[in-house]
Amino acid sequence: MLTRVKSAVAGFMGGIMTGGGSGGGGGNSGSDLPLKFPYMRPEFLGLSPDEIECSADHVARPILILKETRRLPWATGYAEVINAGKSALNEDQACCEVVVARRRPMSYCPPSTPSKTPTAKRRNSLPNGEGLGLRLEHNRTCEDSEGLVFHYWALFDGHAGSGAAVVASRLLQHHIAFQLQVVIEIIRNLHALPPAVMGEEPDNTPYLQGNTPGPHRALTRAASLRGASGAPSSPSNTPPPPRFYTEKKIQHESLVIGAIENAFKEMDVQIEREKHVYNISGGCTALTVVYLLGKLYVGNAGDSRAIIIRNNDIIPMSAEFTPESERQRLQFLGYMQPHLLGNEFTHLEFPRRIQRKEVGKRMLYRDFTMSGWAYKTIEDEDLKFPLIYGEGKKARVLATIGVTRGLGDHDLKVHDSNIYIKPFLSCCPEVKVYNLMQHEHGADDVLVMGTDGLWDVLSNEEVAESITTFLSNCDPDDLHRYTMAAQDLVMRARGVLRDRGWRITNERLGSGDDISVFIIPLMYGNRVPCEPGFKELKGLLDSKTQ
Amino acid sequence: MLTRVKSAVAGFMGGIMTGGGSGGGGGNSGSDLPLKFPYMRPEFLGLSPDEIECSADHVARPILILKETRRLPWATGYAEVINAGKSALNEDQACCEVVVARRRPMSYCPPSTPSKTPTAKRRNSLPNGEGLGLRLEHNRTCEDSEGLVFHYWALFDGHAGSGAAVVASRLLQHHIAFQLQVVIEIIRNLHALPPAVMGEEPDNTPYLQGNTPGPHRALTRAASLRGASGAPSSPSNTPPPPRFYTEKKIQHESLVIGAIENAFKEMDVQIEREKHVYNISGGCTALTVVYLLGKLYVGNAGDSRAIIIRNNDIIPMSAEFTPESERQRLQFLGYMQPHLLGNEFTHLEFPRRIQRKEVGKRMLYRDFTMSGWAYKTIEDEDLKFPLIYGEGKKARVLATIGVTRGLGDHDLKVHDSNIYIKPFLSCCPEVKVYNLMQHEHGADDVLVMGTDGLWDVLSNEEVAESITTFLSNCDPDDLHRYTMAAQDLVMRARGVLRDRGWRITNERLGSGDDISVFIIPLMYGNRVPCEPGFKELKGLLDSKTQ
Repeated sequence: MLTRVKSAVAGFMGGIMTGGGSGGGGGNSGSDLPLKFPYMRPEFLGLSPDEIECSADHVARPILILKETRRLPWATGYAEVINAGKSALNEDQACCEVVVARRRPMSYCPPSTPSKTPTAKRRNSLPNGEGLGLRLEHNRTCEDSEGLVFHYWALFDGHAGSGAAVVASRLLQHHIAFQLQVVIEIIRNLHALPPAVMGEEPDNTPYLQGNTPGPHRALTRAASLRGASGAPSSPSNTPPPPRFYTEKKIQHESLVIGAIENAFKEMDVQIEREKHVYNISGGCTALTVVYLLGKLYVGNAGDSRAIIIRNNDIIPMSAEFTPESERQRLQFLGYMQPHLLGNEFTHLEFPRRIQRKEVGKRMLYRDFTMSGWAYKTIEDEDLKFPLIYGEGKKARVLATIGVTRGLGDHDLKVHDSNIYIKPFLSCCPEVKVYNLMQHEHGADDVLVMGTDGLWDVLSNEEVAESITTFLSNCDPDDLHRYTMAAQDLVMRARGVLRDRGWRITNERLGSGDDISVFIIPLMYGNRVPCEPGFKELKGLLDSKTQ
Repeated sequence: MLTRVKSAVAGFMGGIMTGGGSGGGGGNSGSDLPLKFPYMRPEFLGLSPDEIECSADHVARPILILKETRRLPWATGYAEVINAGKSALNEDQACCEVVVARRRPMSYCPPSTPSKTPTAKRRNSLPNGEGLGLRLEHNRTCEDSEGLVFHYWALFDGHAGSGAAVVASRLLQHHIAFQLQVVIEIIRNLHALPPAVMGEEPDNTPYLQGNTPGPHRALTRAASLRGASGAPSSPSNTPPPPRFYTEKKIQHESLVIGAIENAFKEMDVQIEREKHVYNISGGCTALTVVYLLGKLYVGNAGDSRAIIIRNNDIIPMSAEFTPESERQRLQFLGYMQPHLLGNEFTHLEFPRRIQRKEVGKRMLYRDFTMSGWAYKTIEDEDLKFPLIYGEGKKARVLATIGVTRGLGDHDLKVHDSNIYIKPFLSCCPEVKVYNLMQHEHGADDVLVMGTDGLWDVLSNEEVAESITTFLSNCDPDDLHRYTMAAQDLVMRARGVLRDRGWRITNERLGSGDDISVFIIPLMYGNRVPCEPGFKELKGLLDSKTQ
């Protein structure tokens, strides 16, 4: 995330080359705490320490791709390149796995304890979970059919250190699995809507509200309030009284969305909690794709982006969260909790800095309620720095950070002050759903995930055009074609090194940022049965490790 | 707004028939204050007191239309019908005018003083502005060319009394004119962007930021903060120092949007202020259309709706603000300011009321960060009534109100409590812009504005189909065709009275709510010159009063 954080970047001091465990997971200068995880490149790339070292060449900027001998689920393609020098390490991280969430007894609900997954067993590099909240059960087999299998792809774009991005790339999928565990049976039972109260029969009582017009019902609020919560409990063996209240019907899909939302939150809580024990530097954006029971769930917290390219149409699957797109939310917060602005910032926005001599003049401004602009008379108070300032990629919250959602950043402060940034950041993703079963997909229909290094220099249309053209020139049976397309895309966004820097087509500036790209073909989603059991999972895992 | 407010409706006691000055402007039972304005129907309908009396027949529900002898700007069509009995009076109000905003000296900026307009002079029924904040200058002529002419259409849907709707229908256009006054010259000068500081030359200095990469610049925030606001002022006769800060370029359009946004706010402030002097009952939604310099600005605060029908395509020009669409904003507010919930409500949402005996079980919920649902263990705290409750038209904030933006409602409380609703309501409109000059418009291309009584029973597609079919069967030269189409539309939404109530096609229930509809042909917008002066206005006014 180029130029996205000022202060902490300056304090960056992790080692450049890793291989060992003391690499760039660091970031907080002077932290004596051990790293939570060593700096790494995505495990599925299968890089040797030497290869990782070579990949961090800021001048050559080699594009790393998935080796032909390796397979990701659905023949997913992947490519990445390091930045042009803005940080020693590649602060992007990626993850792609097939995960099993196992049914969890309802009585067993410890907070933020990620689930065991079979993939965890396969990875020798994964720590044994001490202090991670990971519950590894090596003795349990994968053969029980009580699990729910989901496919998972994720990109993380770190800033001010790679610690948070590395941790999130190793653990977020387990938080999702954990959140799904409690609702496995409800989600799998497509014949009944999720019950309001877990364990109770779904409410099939016809709505009684239809017989009583709205205003009369509404007038009885106070009565129903008392009646509902204050009424003596019926003995449990008498039939329940008819329900005179409305009940909102919740769809299965909403439970998956809620699980992903809460998983992001729990991941963030875990980072905050474990910062006291480990050195987890910086923060990161998170873009995840979960495939479950025929649907893709795209969760985004940050400024990475996912689009679907289907039959040459572009379907945006995420929206970026930036100081500009979230201005009104942040101004509203600053207005309501002015102490968060530390007497140094104003929640108002101005088109530029105000000079003291301009007090008394009328200047353009906008408040949290406005999308337009108006003039106001400048007062002393307006000389404070605006909470949101700058445009486009230079826009900043509290003059510090250029992205407004993500994980980590708990210690990030405004330079030379005691003002924390975190209260203005949200770890909550926006989740969009795409029903794979509602469409037929050809071999060239794909979902593209990219960090902002890609999208800063290429538009949706350019990306779609590039991929479509590339794929149409490949052998449709070549499973490596999606990785080749990802490589081509990263090349187009990075460009070539000339006298005056990295250049792409039409002499435009190439991206100097880290760039990471997944290209996920969608046709495999159509071929997967709605409720995949372990056999299917096993097949996928086998193909993955061939 | 049918069934939208419970408590205050019960207290409604304004007289049914008006004609005089003591009609339905009332609403607060027991208010001894005089009415701000008498209850009325839109002035442009030209109804006699007898006609107004007949129009309030809740059984016959006659559809009122613009008389053939009367013209609105652009041959706008209008029709309305009263509700089926939910309130004695028609709580919808409408306004359509051509307004002149005159240049206001910069030094003259009293807060919330609406401008004089020539239309105000024509209306004998308009009070002389005493106590209104209206500044009428009868001695000034309309002939000066320093004014800015805008066309204005507005619908207001009242609840809990018609006072706020009547006041807003009489005054909101003046607030818009007032806000525009200060920026007239800036808006008219299309050759220069609005200056950041009023009166200064627009900043044409090339950006210097391009030469210094972001992170380095950002690091100097503290320094620039001091340098900019703390630097000693230069003597005014020395050339200004080069600007080393960025300056956001604001478009003319943004100033019009800001003017409309602030006009809504000032209208709301005026209602609050004058409630101490006048009896201004209830609250209202507001949907306004302003045509200015070739563009339509559609401002919406509430659940009325505007769509454009162009060449059979539907272009939504507003989005409804309801407890469901604004849930997350309201929950966020309730979470941050829990005292607003008065210990009776919880900011969490549940799919239904919880019974005390269910404490300890796991129930579906969602918080302000979530769009999906998850299960949580029920605690005593969760027995409180949810801040947002119900679905669709039955959704309520604080069990009271079904719309979340609008004007008035300052005294509205939760039934039998001291919890105010107003902090959760916003008077701020969302403004969407449509550039008339970018499209050719035929005689059947229209903008449709309707209160929720229309859209509750007819979809956008049904409305478009209905209007397009109707207009294609009319003489294109008949200027009354848009009113006939509006009448047809209101008829389709109201239906006919059968044994079991009002029925529309396919035996569906007709709308029992007040229904008001403007149909505005767009081709006249193309024909109006970009900067209309007074001559054009005069012609329009003449045709209006023929």
